[in-house]
Amino acid sequence: MKRVFGIDLGGTTVKFSIVDEAGQVLDQWAIPTNVEENGINIASDMVASMKEKMAGLTGDDVPVAIGVGVPGPIVGDMVERAVNLGWSNMPLGRVLKTEMDMPVALLNDANAAALGEVWMGGDPNNATGTAVFVTLGTGVGGGIVIQGQVINGEHGCAGELGHNPVDAHDVRVCGCGKTNCLECYASATGFVKTANQLFAKAGSAHIFTSGKEVFDEIAAGEPLAIEARDITVEYLASSLAAVVNTVDPQEVIVGGGLSHAGDLLLGPLADRLRDYVFPAVRDRYVLRRAVLGNNAGILGAAYQAIRLIS
Amino acid sequence: MKRVFGIDLGGTTVKFSIVDEAGQVLDQWAIPTNVEENGINIASDMVASMKEKMAGLTGDDVPVAIGVGVPGPIVGDMVERAVNLGWSNMPLGRVLKTEMDMPVALLNDANAAALGEVWMGGDPNNATGTAVFVTLGTGVGGGIVIQGQVINGEHGCAGELGHNPVDAHDVRVCGCGKTNCLECYASATGFVKTANQLFAKAGSAHIFTSGKEVFDEIAAGEPLAIEARDITVEYLASSLAAVVNTVDPQEVIVGGGLSHAGDLLLGPLADRLRDYVFPAVRDRYVLRRAVLGNNAGILGAAYQAIRLIS
Repeated sequence: MKRVFGIDLGGTTVKFSIVDEAGQVLDQWAIPTNVEENGINIASDMVASMKEKMAGLTGDDVPVAIGVGVPGPIVGDMVERAVNLGWSNMPLGRVLKTEMDMPVALLNDANAAALGEVWMGGDPNNATGTAVFVTLGTGVGGGIVIQGQVINGEHGCAGELGHNPVDAHDVRVCGCGKTNCLECYASATGFVKTANQLFAKAGSAHIFTSGKEVFDEIAAGEPLAIEARDITVEYLASSLAAVVNTVDPQEVIVGGGLSHAGDLLLGPLADRLRDYVFPAVRDRYVLRRAVLGNNAGILGAAYQAIRLIS
Repeated sequence: MKRVFGIDLGGTTVKFSIVDEAGQVLDQWAIPTNVEENGINIASDMVASMKEKMAGLTGDDVPVAIGVGVPGPIVGDMVERAVNLGWSNMPLGRVLKTEMDMPVALLNDANAAALGEVWMGGDPNNATGTAVFVTLGTGVGGGIVIQGQVINGEHGCAGELGHNPVDAHDVRVCGCGKTNCLECYASATGFVKTANQLFAKAGSAHIFTSGKEVFDEIAAGEPLAIEARDITVEYLASSLAAVVNTVDPQEVIVGGGLSHAGDLLLGPLADRLRDYVFPAVRDRYVLRRAVLGNNAGILGAAYQAIRLIS
């Protein structure tokens, strides 16, 4: 069985793994990401680390392709920009291909996570299916998989669901420069903000600092916390419904910090999504939590690499 | 150059054409759609018409594949349902393939129109590009093309943009059973309704009966008509922005009756869409009118047939 490198290139560490065609992670290690001088040494550090690993391997154990999830938009073999790495138009694909002499797949990190979840996170029979993946963390990210292929978009920006507009009464400025993006309300940050606003308005001095704290209150039946959850779910369901209508998926997968709330979030989300989607697809997709955590990106990157050699 | 049948199967007529690989329509004719007895004779009528045409053709002039745009969701070689034809789970693909002894591609009619517009309606260099297609007619339909391939969805429902939820002050029941779908506001019907509501509220007894009449008032500078247009554009832009963020297209193509208003509609739509999309894709897609009219569906069906033989 062939083996590939699956790599998650983050702003703090580069996580490497060796993955086989069945999705088994056979080895895993990490190096720090050197973001000095606009990240000029990152690619050569990656090459050195992979070469060092390969020196100890022989025969079928040697990886034959590379997949990398990158925190920025990918166009061709180029990382258009990656703010956390200091990169702008970095030809990472070409560099790795030349230095490592094997095929290289680059993909956006959220897209890699989407692909990983579709491949190894659910029903193996759905691995070539269509899925909408959304992460509710510090921000809101997403990825769209159509019949087992992740959609990159013409400018590497497909699946940017966090920046769908929502029609809110509040006005919140998004990191992207727009106002009232989905991310302003359905990220963990936005959710906590909504809860704090509701509590302050009710005269409470309590300040939440994490989504988990708000969900603890929801579990205890606190009405204002429930109201904050319902506002979040409302925006998320309405926005996801447009995406579900667009691609008609088998699965809608929710990851990121807020997804750990489980049914306290996914229960009402399923109900509202059901109300909002086109009736002909209602009850025909599965809404589920992401299950792979940080390994999703590595597995998705590996999957994309495996596609290059099969 | 190979030739194929491109067929637009409608509730009133079945429009046939013979199209070559360059997208030239070489012949075109139609037969009435016999919807009696739940449309049981439609497929055999189609076969008879194609066989009759083929009897007069020899050599390379004989079509070698069939593409059909159908007014309903397609799953595999099956039309899941087509209310206008009386069909439910009709194995049209299998029937045509057996009777005509050539490859058959079925696709939803809005998807066929999307594919046709991408193939022959714009820049030929974009024929393998990514596009969002929306029609603003009696209803609101849509189709999504990703790198030259139309997305059918897991249940034949991809691209049903008309049923994206909008957050409106009014409450309008959609034909699909939901309330406040995009179609209730951005179809020609919905647009006219919005204009009539505004005029009635202002004490006017004037009743518009077509989108064109409202756009004539807009051209004359009538503020209430402009307000109706702006409300329509607001819902449409916000909904399309979510779709643009999802697939990151090269083109956003607007067809259907309302698109004939040209810049009076597309000008403000471009502005609002620009405000709503993810900044990294802003100004990187082309918003344009559909140009092929009724031929879009025939050409898209033909394109899908050509894919089967090339």
